[in-house]
Formats: sequence, C-alpha cells, structure tokens
Amino acid sequence: MKVAIIGTGLIGGSLALALKRAGFATTVLGMDKNSEHLKKALDLKIIDSSATISEVCKSADLIILTIPVDAICKILPEVLSSISEQTTVVDMGSTKAKICESVKNHPKRANFVASHPIAGTEYTGPEAAIVDLFQDKKTIICQQEKSSKIALNLVKNMYELLEMKIELMDPATHDLQIAYVSHLSHISAFSLGLTVLAEEKKDKNIFKMAGGGFSSTVRLAKSSANMWAPIFDQNAQNISQALGEYIKHLELFKKAIDQGDQSKTRELMEKAGVIRTKM
Amino acid sequence: MKVAIIGTGLIGGSLALALKRAGFATTVLGMDKNSEHLKKALDLKIIDSSATISEVCKSADLIILTIPVDAICKILPEVLSSISEQTTVVDMGSTKAKICESVKNHPKRANFVASHPIAGTEYTGPEAAIVDLFQDKKTIICQQEKSSKIALNLVKNMYELLEMKIELMDPATHDLQIAYVSHLSHISAFSLGLTVLAEEKKDKNIFKMAGGGFSSTVRLAKSSANMWAPIFDQNAQNISQALGEYIKHLELFKKAIDQGDQSKTRELMEKAGVIRTKM
Repeated sequence: MKVAIIGTGLIGGSLALALKRAGFATTVLGMDKNSEHLKKALDLKIIDSSATISEVCKSADLIILTIPVDAICKILPEVLSSISEQTTVVDMGSTKAKICESVKNHPKRANFVASHPIAGTEYTGPEAAIVDLFQDKKTIICQQEKSSKIALNLVKNMYELLEMKIELMDPATHDLQIAYVSHLSHISAFSLGLTVLAEEKKDKNIFKMAGGGFSSTVRLAKSSANMWAPIFDQNAQNISQALGEYIKHLELFKKAIDQGDQSKTRELMEKAGVIRTKM
Repeated sequence: MKVAIIGTGLIGGSLALALKRAGFATTVLGMDKNSEHLKKALDLKIIDSSATISEVCKSADLIILTIPVDAICKILPEVLSSISEQTTVVDMGSTKAKICESVKNHPKRANFVASHPIAGTEYTGPEAAIVDLFQDKKTIICQQEKSSKIALNLVKNMYELLEMKIELMDPATHDLQIAYVSHLSHISAFSLGLTVLAEEKKDKNIFKMAGGGFSSTVRLAKSSANMWAPIFDQNAQNISQALGEYIKHLELFKKAIDQGDQSKTRELMEKAGVIRTKM
C-alpha cells in the first residue's frame, strides 16, 4: 500500500518507520513545509520520496496528516476534494472537535477518519522518530459513524498492526478529557520551566540542584511551540476550565502552607494520593 | 563499620542495601516507629537487626537519620546528647535550615553532618528500596565548617562510595533552590492529581485517556504525605514564593488562551523551551 505522510516530524516519522516495518506500507511518500525536516526524513530513509500535494492526492492509498491542528483544519478539506473515491485520509491531531467541524459537510467526509494516538515524546522532528512509539498505547477514533466502512477498517487495521488499543469516542468528550490529562500537563510543565528559568536569573546555580522529580515534571516543557499553540487555541474552553481548577488547587496548597496548616496540606496530599489506584 | 539507620523506608532501606554492598557497613541496625516497616526491613534483610535508640547511640559508628524533617529536628539533639565522641550522625532531610538551627548550639554539633542526597522515587517503605538509588546522583552537604574533620570525611567517604557527586552549600541557599526544583514539582503534581480526580467525579472514564505525559507530570503525587507535610512546613516561605510565581505563569497562559492570543502562548512556550539547554 502506498502511504503518504504529511508532516515528517516525530509522529509522522515514527509512523512511517512502524508502518514499513509492519509491512503495511510498501512505499511512503512524505511532505513537509519544513524543507530541512523533509531532507532529513529522506536521508534517514524514513520516507521513500518526497511528493507534492497533487501527487499525494493522486497516488496514495492512505494519506496521514501529522501536522499541527490548525494546518489540519486548513488542508483537510482541500485534500478530501482532490482525492479519488478509493483514498482514505486520517489525521492524528490532539484536538478533534474543530477538525471534525472543518469537514462536517464535505462530500467526501466518509473518506476521512478522525483519530488521535495517545503517544509522543517531548522531542521534535524526524530525528526524534521512534519505531516503537505507538506500541501498546491507546488511540482514539472519533465519529466513526461518519467514516465509510472501508476507510474505518483500513485505519483500524493500521492501528491494530501498530499494536494500539482503539477507543471510540465523540469529539466533545475527547477534547474535554484530553484537556485534563494531556493539555493541562503541558501547561503545568511549560509554567514550571518558566518559573525556574526566571529564578535562575537571580540564582545561576539553581539547575545544579535538579533531580529526577524536576526532570519528570518539566519534561514536556521541551515540546514544540508550533505544535502546541494551535492545540491550546482550538481547545481553549476546556483547557481554560482545567487550568482554572488546577490553579484553585495550587492556591489551596499555598494558603495552607502560608497558614502553617500541616493538617490541611496532609489532607490535600492524601486526597491526591488516590492517583495510585488509577495508574 | 556499624551503621544505624533511623527510618527504614525508601531512603533508609536503599542506603542500607547500598552501604552493605559497598562494604562500608558490616552491620546495619534499624529503627522505625512504624513496626510494619521495621519487620519488613528485617524480613527483606535490609537491616541486620532492630535496636532501641539507646543501643543505637551506644554502639553505632555512624547514625543516619532518614525520617521526616520534623522528626529529625526532634530526635537529632537527643541523639547528639547520647552518643560518644567517636560517633558521627548524618541526616538526609529535604530541608536544611531548620535542621541546622535545631543543633546550632549543641555541644556535639561537630559530630553532625547536615546533608541531602537528591535521590528518591514516588514510592514509600522498605519494599521500595533500590540498591542503586543514589548512584550518579548529586548530594548536598551544608555547614561543612561546623562538622569535625572526622565526621565530615566519614560522610564524604560514604557518599563517594555511593558514587554521588558532593556539592557544598549553605542551608538558606539549599532551601531556596530546592523549593524551586523539588518542592514546587511535588505541589504541581499533587495539584494535578487533585484536579483530574475531581473531574473524574463528573467523567468516570477520564483516566483511560491518560498517556505518558500525564504519568510523568503526576508521578510525584504518589509521594508520602507524612514525609512531605513537614517539608512544606519547614520551607514554607521559599515554597510560597516559588508557588506564587508558578501560579502567575499559569495565569499568563490562562489569560492568553482565554483571549485567543496564540502569539502570546507561543512566546511563553518558546521562553520555557530554553529548559532544553539546562537539562
């Protein structure tokens, strides 16, 4: 099968490697508006050749969109308008409502599958690609009833070959839940990075003290701003709600600490410790 | 050498295992007010025998305090009063100012070394002990000038055998820096746990969506409330400052997201991304 990857970064690159290894893709075409990423993906043999959008739409059996979510909303209707009846398009964006909205009345809506594999790292670009990135992770498919059986089965088959667990979900539920368990984590990490970097201006040795706990909580601050700015924008309402509640909990801690109220900080920590039973 | 570990949890247990493996400790005595931990540490052969405080003070060459920081402040002056001239005492608490303060005028202050190995996990108790926990990590020694050469050399020798990198620092600097790169990370994780657990009451499947990013940012919420409540209390002023600045950064994100200001979220993320050069 001829697979086209639009966006040859971490996700697109990892996918290209995994789909070739699984024998699912015989040829992988690649597109990227970042010419360095495209060249690197070719050099690393992540993709077999580069292609224009019209070549991709004409010749690929499956077109995979692994670009920022605003770019998906822009390119998806154009791609659907240019493909044949036999071509399937799938996206891997971290928001689902705006993307589904962008093609809800498109005559080829059935050729599209809206998905979101819950996999990634804090690194960016084709050099960051990992063949096993998707293995044993979850992936979400939204509005499966709006995709044709052929398109849906092709995408499900792909995710099963990648050894992913598929969950079906509506876009609104996806966007709300992912705001809490992914988007909020990113903002917590970016803000932690900003806080310690600001303190470093007064205290240049501060990072010498950092250990595994800091690394783990700040790791996501290394994520790509180009990828995340449109996610925050498209999922603004849910993220704002999650962030507001997060700030309230931080303020409960701050108040208890300012008042020297150890029984309150202990109570908050014990309540948070229920997380042990969840994951 | 006969080593006594007061507090046979994650840190004390890991230390006992490592010091025996290194040949530094020939016998390890253990004390714990949690009788289950003590029994488990004996069963797992982490310690050789249990002992009372007077046996420990009488017979150990090195007494290591791996208990919550409020318990250290309470027990340390008593231990120093009961030991011989030849005995060294070291603590491993995550705060240093209050602990140093608790013995600043003690006639045996020179027998004490104030330290903080930057190592740990989110788990608790002797079952969580890991023989390699300390390897290649940093450790801090404070007020080294107040310790006798013999005591200081013994503790330095111990940390070198554990393959740790020793940094010397005053308690105030330690407590300020560690508030930013450790204590704040814990509160960010506890609050993240509380936020998603509260949302779970409205949306019972929310944890199904959690991936590696959430795991990494929330991991520290599994930490022991008994260990952390006294740390937050002893380092309240520094933590309150760090937490206040963290909340300000989160509010900058929230405002930019509420206003649909992608150039601002992008700017904040790019600034935070400097963390890539720091660790």
